[in-house]
Amino acid sequence: MNYDAMFQSALDGLHADGSYRYFAELERRAGDFPKAFHHGIGREVTVWCSNDYLGMGQHAEVLAAMHKALAETGAGAGGTRNISGTNHYHVALEKELASLHGKESALLFNSGYLSNWVTLGTIAARLKGCVVLSDASNHASMIEGIRHSRAEKQIFRHNDVEDLERRLKEIPADVPKIIAFESVYSMDGDIAPIEAFCDLADKYGAMTYLDEVHAVGMYGEHGAGIAEKLGLSHRLTVIEGTLGKGYGVVGGYIAASAPLCDFVRSFGSGFIFSTALPPMIAAGALASVRYLKRSQKERDGQQRAVAYMREALDRAGIPHVQNDSHIVPVMVGEADLCRALSDELLTRFGHYLQPINYPTVARGTERLRLTPTPLHTNEDIDEMVVALSTLWQERQLKRSVAA
Amino acid sequence: MNYDAMFQSALDGLHADGSYRYFAELERRAGDFPKAFHHGIGREVTVWCSNDYLGMGQHAEVLAAMHKALAETGAGAGGTRNISGTNHYHVALEKELASLHGKESALLFNSGYLSNWVTLGTIAARLKGCVVLSDASNHASMIEGIRHSRAEKQIFRHNDVEDLERRLKEIPADVPKIIAFESVYSMDGDIAPIEAFCDLADKYGAMTYLDEVHAVGMYGEHGAGIAEKLGLSHRLTVIEGTLGKGYGVVGGYIAASAPLCDFVRSFGSGFIFSTALPPMIAAGALASVRYLKRSQKERDGQQRAVAYMREALDRAGIPHVQNDSHIVPVMVGEADLCRALSDELLTRFGHYLQPINYPTVARGTERLRLTPTPLHTNEDIDEMVVALSTLWQERQLKRSVAA
Ligand SMILES: Cc1ncc(COP(=O)(O)O)c(C=O)c1O
Ligand SMILES: Cc1ncc(COP(=O)(O)O)c(C=O)c1O
Repeated sequence: MNYDAMFQSALDGLHADGSYRYFAELERRAGDFPKAFHHGIGREVTVWCSNDYLGMGQHAEVLAAMHKALAETGAGAGGTRNISGTNHYHVALEKELASLHGKESALLFNSGYLSNWVTLGTIAARLKGCVVLSDASNHASMIEGIRHSRAEKQIFRHNDVEDLERRLKEIPADVPKIIAFESVYSMDGDIAPIEAFCDLADKYGAMTYLDEVHAVGMYGEHGAGIAEKLGLSHRLTVIEGTLGKGYGVVGGYIAASAPLCDFVRSFGSGFIFSTALPPMIAAGALASVRYLKRSQKERDGQQRAVAYMREALDRAGIPHVQNDSHIVPVMVGEADLCRALSDELLTRFGHYLQPINYPTVARGTERLRLTPTPLHTNEDIDEMVVALSTLWQERQLKRSVAA
Repeated sequence: MNYDAMFQSALDGLHADGSYRYFAELERRAGDFPKAFHHGIGREVTVWCSNDYLGMGQHAEVLAAMHKALAETGAGAGGTRNISGTNHYHVALEKELASLHGKESALLFNSGYLSNWVTLGTIAARLKGCVVLSDASNHASMIEGIRHSRAEKQIFRHNDVEDLERRLKEIPADVPKIIAFESVYSMDGDIAPIEAFCDLADKYGAMTYLDEVHAVGMYGEHGAGIAEKLGLSHRLTVIEGTLGKGYGVVGGYIAASAPLCDFVRSFGSGFIFSTALPPMIAAGALASVRYLKRSQKERDGQQRAVAYMREALDRAGIPHVQNDSHIVPVMVGEADLCRALSDELLTRFGHYLQPINYPTVARGTERLRLTPTPLHTNEDIDEMVVALSTLWQERQLKRSVAA
């Protein structure tokens, strides 16, 4: 058996269709974000695809909290949460997250991926006969968690209230049900009809599971996400979030009722059997959450940058998808073209932007995904749009009507 | 539907059989390890159950590297590895880990749990018809990865070469096979017959997947684990390890051929769709790996402490499981007794040791698991053994023959 040959032939397939991924080796520099040093081309670039959406990864309060906790508590947790790995900062962070979302309790994971995978995987597996109703555009971590549970899954059309209701209607009243969806969808930037889904959940006795990974820190008066912004937090059974995007650090969590969190804490394999996050990571996340609870500046700055970028793109006739979020998708539709454009943006113009290809998005919907942050200046944005415009011109790509 | 009532009733079951877990809230203090402040009882304790096996979590070189990288690169990676999240330190760490294990390549994950789950889950799912032969005592993360893959699984008796061969023999030669096992088993401290398993793998054309989570940093001339110690690294297809135990930080990895790592990198959902580890975590792990590559002091110190503790336990007649590793299991056999003993060790004697109950170990094999480190002094160990002896006396527990 030549196993390497089998692996290689699968990789050859990716090379052949242009979806093989080359990682850019960057050097982030605290204080210079969104600039970074790009080792591949040996020069400074402007980063346009970071999920450190608000630049909190370089925020003075976050860094100070981490330096302090690192000096005090050391590098790691030294154990799983149960076996010597629970530190004061984990407990404080869980309390803060529960309060942020107006829930009784919260539970910390090493990533947002794990929080979805473990929570859905555990609940759906252990509630006898449970049916999961999953939005068609849900993130891989939810899909894998549901798959792992082996519960019955029904996929409803993306953000489609009617399709969801049609399915709920057909499931017997005494069957446990979970409606799993996201608030801001990361690749299109569109937003779920949260209230309508909650109404259906009430009507049909379902739990609601909301992934706010691309919203926490950025929406609502305290940064708790879209549910907070719409005054709906109390209607959701589980709110899931990440500490690695808007909050700029790493880790994930759920906020929910005390019994639900305790249940996942007690039965979730991927929570129980893994070394806890370093206390100093929890300290950094705590500082970030607390800061964004009181500061509006970053949220306002992000909204400003996004609006400015959309206008500039419209003026230049670069087609982008409209939505109510901070995500600006410029549609390309071909893996090779998408890569070629991002290569030129990088090497000719110093703009780093990873092409978004399959399997992150469906084939045929390849795109450049821009996430302007409060730290992108108008000049940064103007430069980027000029670069895009130049490439659109040279390659005779289709312009939007606004142009 | 009252979902909380369902969760609560499952939790009531844990309370009833004594396996409900209470997390101890600790305050690690860099420089004082293995001492920590225990918030529950409001005093300093000696920690006996940490998997920061060598105290690297407070090592000056590790902390310095992290402070430096934190100041330079900030708090987080800001993206998945593909989308702006690959930093110089990730790349350097992967190179170092590959070289440590004598492999072409390595791949970093946010935890050891994820490295097992993603790698086995991806490989076993995508090699058509693959059969996984899994040791009966394998860790939850491997079990869940195999389960996730939906490949055929055969569980062979723990560390049993004959049972493994009997099973291999019956699988057709052209079927892909993976033998998945650990080097040091964390709860019993026994060690797999790695060479015999590799011989079988060669004979029957199987891949070998070795989890060295409880061995990396601690065995072999460069700390690469048991396979290095035995000169067997080159015979294993995949070596998996953690950066959160012997290395004292957090994270996990695999080291293997370039095509295998690239395959997991390209197809593993739990790798692709999750924010990368913060660069400063990679920097800390890198410093730890490099340090333990050249320093024997910590490994020697651990061996000394373990030998000293075993002798002291023998003299006191406290029954413990003999093995060739650094793990000292004191068998108790009942969840309630196990908890009562650890409660008294804590409150009366200031020794913190989490009771190891179901589901971490099988019911009836509940235990106190001691992991003396190079930083436990002989006095620490003497005090612990006196405390155990007192409890054994008071409760008239069975002594070992040596007493
Ligand atoms: C919708 C969604 N949920 C969960 C995750 C995983 O979160 P994390 O990056 O913290 O693992 C991501 C992206 O990474 C995501 O886009
Ligand atoms: C054998 C084994 N493999 C993997 C893991 C997971 O590693 P990590 O703690 O880095 O998630 C553990 C323990 O936590 C383990 O005991």
